[in-house]
Amino acid sequence: MKIVIVDESPVRAAILEDGLREAGFTNVERIAEMRSLLARIYAIDPDVILIDLENPSRDILEQMFQVSRAVRRPVAMFVDQSDAASIQASVDAGVSAYIVDGLKKERIKSILDLCVSRFNAFSRLQDELARAKSEIEERKTIDRAKGLLMKAKNLSEEDAYRLMRSTAMREKKKIFEIAQAIITASELFK
Amino acid sequence: MKIVIVDESPVRAAILEDGLREAGFTNVERIAEMRSLLARIYAIDPDVILIDLENPSRDILEQMFQVSRAVRRPVAMFVDQSDAASIQASVDAGVSAYIVDGLKKERIKSILDLCVSRFNAFSRLQDELARAKSEIEERKTIDRAKGLLMKAKNLSEEDAYRLMRSTAMREKKKIFEIAQAIITASELFK
Repeated sequence: MKIVIVDESPVRAAILEDGLREAGFTNVERIAEMRSLLARIYAIDPDVILIDLENPSRDILEQMFQVSRAVRRPVAMFVDQSDAASIQASVDAGVSAYIVDGLKKERIKSILDLCVSRFNAFSRLQDELARAKSEIEERKTIDRAKGLLMKAKNLSEEDAYRLMRSTAMREKKKIFEIAQAIITASELFK
Repeated sequence: MKIVIVDESPVRAAILEDGLREAGFTNVERIAEMRSLLARIYAIDPDVILIDLENPSRDILEQMFQVSRAVRRPVAMFVDQSDAASIQASVDAGVSAYIVDGLKKERIKSILDLCVSRFNAFSRLQDELARAKSEIEERKTIDRAKGLLMKAKNLSEEDAYRLMRSTAMREKKKIFEIAQAIITASELFK
């Protein structure tokens, strides 16, 4: 597992690095320079990102939340203090572990485990939702195409569906793609 | 906000109670007796549940995860040590904040905020997924009923749908309910 530590403070970064080393994680890189942070993270392509901020300004915090939204990786964030609004914002930004006043090397391993487990659980739920939504969209599209075909060729529902299915098989495409083509074509021929 | 503390240890419960009081939470009850825990929690009907376990056995931990699954409330759980498997299990059980070796009264407020924010975010996603899934089921049911009606009464797709819709309006029901009735009836009349 490749881990990136984002930390401007060498002293605090050392706590994280010690905790990780003692937990057996050796593939660890540190980013100490905040300029073009996202590009630096992408270049390393880590599995987990630990961001330590000590006492961030509102701007820095917001910038880090944007990083969290962009990377689609488990992110743990350490701050020394926080308010309810920032905590809410961290959850909205998909930060998987937001640790207020809890930077201690003995805790790093369990925070890392928690961060990864929680990220995976949330991702699974989001994937399932995306699949359900696209199934709804596909059904709507297929229904609409079937209706167009029934009207244009004076077919029964069954025959319209059968025609779409046989076309899909012949062209080695999904019925959904045939349905999209029918809708596009019917708009062109209007 | 009504908060329940589940804690057998008076010393550790006092840390939680102090932290909550200093953060301005006054509506706090403590459960010190683990027998019929779920019934006790239901009787209080709290908004948030803090469970402190110190060094739980595997059985106690599993029992608490069952509580978390049952209550459908934000749950924060404090333990002194943990392994990766228990951490994963806590996430699977919907524990919103699982704090390993981090019981400190100054941290209670932010852990509580985090616990509630995370619980709400996860619940929203789960609700959205449940709605999408039931939309898919409704569409399938309506489609099937429409097909049955088309065959039985020799109707076009449009007319079958129109008949279902007008019946729904007349009976002040949803089209989905009419569709369910059609499917049930068609099985009876087979």
